[in-house]
Amino acid sequence: MKVALLSIGDELLIGKTVNTNASWLGEHLSTIGFDIHCVETISDNREQIISSLNRLIPENNAVIITGGLGPTNDDITKHVLCELFNTELEFNQQAYDGMAKYVLARNQEINENNKTQAQFPKAAKLIPNPCGTASGMWFEKNGTVVISLPGVPHEMKAIMTESGIPWLKAKFELPAIYHRHVLVSNITESKLAETIADWEAQLPPQIHLAYLPSPGYVKLRMTCTAGNEAEAHRLVENEEQKLRAIINPFIWGFDDDTIESVVGKLLAKYGETVSTAESCTGGNISKMITSISGSSAYYYGSIISYDNSVKIKQLNVNPNDIERVGVVSEEVVKTMSSEVRKKIGTTYGIATSGIAGPTGGTAEKPVGTVWIAVASEQNIVTQKFMLGKERDTNIEKATVYALRMLQQLILNEHNATV
Amino acid sequence: MKVALLSIGDELLIGKTVNTNASWLGEHLSTIGFDIHCVETISDNREQIISSLNRLIPENNAVIITGGLGPTNDDITKHVLCELFNTELEFNQQAYDGMAKYVLARNQEINENNKTQAQFPKAAKLIPNPCGTASGMWFEKNGTVVISLPGVPHEMKAIMTESGIPWLKAKFELPAIYHRHVLVSNITESKLAETIADWEAQLPPQIHLAYLPSPGYVKLRMTCTAGNEAEAHRLVENEEQKLRAIINPFIWGFDDDTIESVVGKLLAKYGETVSTAESCTGGNISKMITSISGSSAYYYGSIISYDNSVKIKQLNVNPNDIERVGVVSEEVVKTMSSEVRKKIGTTYGIATSGIAGPTGGTAEKPVGTVWIAVASEQNIVTQKFMLGKERDTNIEKATVYALRMLQQLILNEHNATV
Repeated sequence: MKVALLSIGDELLIGKTVNTNASWLGEHLSTIGFDIHCVETISDNREQIISSLNRLIPENNAVIITGGLGPTNDDITKHVLCELFNTELEFNQQAYDGMAKYVLARNQEINENNKTQAQFPKAAKLIPNPCGTASGMWFEKNGTVVISLPGVPHEMKAIMTESGIPWLKAKFELPAIYHRHVLVSNITESKLAETIADWEAQLPPQIHLAYLPSPGYVKLRMTCTAGNEAEAHRLVENEEQKLRAIINPFIWGFDDDTIESVVGKLLAKYGETVSTAESCTGGNISKMITSISGSSAYYYGSIISYDNSVKIKQLNVNPNDIERVGVVSEEVVKTMSSEVRKKIGTTYGIATSGIAGPTGGTAEKPVGTVWIAVASEQNIVTQKFMLGKERDTNIEKATVYALRMLQQLILNEHNATV
Repeated sequence: MKVALLSIGDELLIGKTVNTNASWLGEHLSTIGFDIHCVETISDNREQIISSLNRLIPENNAVIITGGLGPTNDDITKHVLCELFNTELEFNQQAYDGMAKYVLARNQEINENNKTQAQFPKAAKLIPNPCGTASGMWFEKNGTVVISLPGVPHEMKAIMTESGIPWLKAKFELPAIYHRHVLVSNITESKLAETIADWEAQLPPQIHLAYLPSPGYVKLRMTCTAGNEAEAHRLVENEEQKLRAIINPFIWGFDDDTIESVVGKLLAKYGETVSTAESCTGGNISKMITSISGSSAYYYGSIISYDNSVKIKQLNVNPNDIERVGVVSEEVVKTMSSEVRKKIGTTYGIATSGIAGPTGGTAEKPVGTVWIAVASEQNIVTQKFMLGKERDTNIEKATVYALRMLQQLILNEHNATV
């Protein structure tokens, strides 16, 4: 089944916005068995929209349009779709109610612009938008489905996740494709490739392996295309057993796991808690932990000690240690991690200190040098990392490594495994 | 002058790689006056490449192809271009020298794969690659320029910056295009549209206006096409003056400003400092502030007080206040903001307390209710926000609003304006 993605918006063409909608849709639609035929980005322009759709509709089983559904004047997609599907706008109670519910929940007033969003094409089925005022539209023409979605990423994703993707799966007979992700850390991509080369060479032809590197970890993706779902699962499970025998110590999760979700589940399971004392990560570890709803059960708080005065006054770091071995040192993160868990009153304490860059490096401690410690009542584990030159990536990597160290400590203290 | 961007590669279609090449090219080519007609992403597939180019070449003055020039088997762009331009590959000394220089500088040996990169189409002009082994190609057909570039972002950018863009500017007579972004907060997109409707209606035909919403703010983009640069600037500046007269209190920045960079520059300018006491934002404010290199000059640290015990013990929040008016209240954020600035020793203190969601809401305080306070020695400003249902977006929005409140307080205390 072929799908084309059509992104509408000048901000995409002139590069002010990166087209992450297309990559999200590409990933999620290929995962359910669609063949992504092409992605096109065009202007908010009637002729261009019509010309692209007239070409894409006969060539594809589905066309997913994003953008051009806001309440403002430069958004013309809805009118052009009416023209193309030979229909007209009419007041739609469901569209009005969805918009009104959203607006009123925010204590805002429904204005004229909002009201135009209740005008909906007669020929379209409404796809509810749980996160905004513009509903999605579902058209069909000669068996091809055309979906039109707002361009705001979280609205687009919510509409597709709740309704668009399930409806597409119900409409089309898609091949049985099974993706399994094995999440691996503390080993470089090239070292990993070397380690599992023999296993990779013996994979059955139905399984395709991909390496998807992210800051701090690598996702190994097995994609299996088979006659039916059970067969695809069986083939992948068989290979996964062999893979675990080779790289088990590096595996920290599977599929949609994130390091913060894995750690959160462990803490919740054992009724334990965590706090952080962050320097170079600047609050990113606490931000990642609290990105999960329900994290208040196991995360209590942090002392973000960016300036040395905060490390000394709030975390009892010894100024002599800073003088003697530097603030980026095992001694300092040890103190920070054990002090923060005592001060905040948690089972575990995480500490980071490093040079995120791009400035601040020295010959002895170049940019990318990071010390991390994780303390419990009985143990303190520490590790030094030599990361790269790029600030954002260094912060992301240090965050993953710190949470991975916490995962390992929790597992060790409970004699458990991933 | 119209340009089309053609990105080749399966990894882009299935969303494994986000198409940042297209946004970079879009930004840089529109800046020099090209009209970006469309961006297309297709597979490494002969028929699709030929079909797209046969359509795009007659419609555009230039077509920029990225991807499919590596040494591996699935990279077929060079062969397809030879077919399309009715030419053939031959050994090219300049291509060989460029490749060899690059490989030898890295103490590597020239292998068979590298040698194929010295095979170059007879009909093409070579565009040097200062950062890799694959040269760029410049073809012309009926006045349309077709450029083919490697897909590795830093190689593509280096080729275009050093040669591609200067050569295009020399080849075409381009109009002067000027983009100006006005960044606006604390007003919804639809309310903003209503407020500036009259101004928008009287804009001269050379200026096109677009609304680009992000969590917590809206970017208004004026795009002006004029005979020369001075004229384009003059037209935009004139309209910007009128716009400021209408919405000045909502404007917090321009062009590439981010709220964390704007606030950082202000703090650095006045030699002042900030700390945060975050509950619902969970460290995201400190994370955003410290994403900027050099932020250690004005950001000292934070008490992330997620659990009430941390608010009480570390920030002297009165348990009776929590009992009486709730932890999501003006009283509590007032105490948090003034206590954190005293405890960490900074000029300003920011505090947040709210219900990020999706759970935890009540009838009185639904999900999305957020109180924010910013304190200095003399002042405490507070504001209540009713945000949405989505956790990530609520955290992002609260972060922008908090930093915007800090910006306003700094400006007020120094009798300054944006």
